[in-house]
Amino acid sequence: MIAPTPTPPYFAVIFTSVRTEGENGYTDAAERMAALAAEQPGFLGVESARNEVGITVSYWESLDAIRNWKQNAEHLLVQEKGREVFYSSYKTRICKVERDYEFEK
Amino acid sequence: MIAPTPTPPYFAVIFTSVRTEGENGYTDAAERMAALAAEQPGFLGVESARNEVGITVSYWESLDAIRNWKQNAEHLLVQEKGREVFYSSYKTRICKVERDYEFEK
Repeated sequence: MIAPTPTPPYFAVIFTSVRTEGENGYTDAAERMAALAAEQPGFLGVESARNEVGITVSYWESLDAIRNWKQNAEHLLVQEKGREVFYSSYKTRICKVERDYEFEK
Repeated sequence: MIAPTPTPPYFAVIFTSVRTEGENGYTDAAERMAALAAEQPGFLGVESARNEVGITVSYWESLDAIRNWKQNAEHLLVQEKGREVFYSSYKTRICKVERDYEFEK
C-alpha cells in the first residue's frame, strides 16, 4: 500500500538491504517490527518491497521520532540480529521529504 | 544492488507505485528509463523492488538534476504512458538525504 502521508515536510527512513540465505525467523521479526513501528509516536506510515534488494521506507513526523524508534529496546535487539543473521549488507538513509505529488486513476 | 552514494547531503526521489493488470510494454519502458536516468547529469544511483507495491528510489546530486530528469522529453512521454497505462496509482516524494550509515558483512 502507498502510505497516506500528510503534506510535507515530514521525514523518511530509506532502509535498503540484501538478505543472507535462509529464513532464520526473518519474516516473524519483520512483521513484529512493522507492528511495533506503527505504535511509535510520530509514525506516519511504511512501504516495503523485496526482490534482489529489499527497500523499506518508513515515514515520520520528526527526526526525534526517528531517533526514538532507532533506540527502542526491542528494535535494538532486532537490529543486532539483523547484522548477525538476517542481512549481508544494508544502508539506511535519513531524509527530509520536501515535496510530493501523487496520481490515482 | 545497494546504490553506492556519496557522503550526504544529496537528494532522493522515492517513487512508490501500484501497477495495472497486464504487461503492456512496462518492462521494456522501465529498463529504458533506468538506462536513460543513469545518463543524466547529477545521477548518483538507483534501487528498485516490487511486490504489491513497487518502490524505486533514485539518488541525485541536486534538486536541479531531479527537475531536469523530470522534464526530459523521452521521460515525459513515459510519465504520460504511466498514468494512462502502467499505473493505477503512484506517489513521488522528493527528499534531501541528511544522514546515512551502512553495514557490510
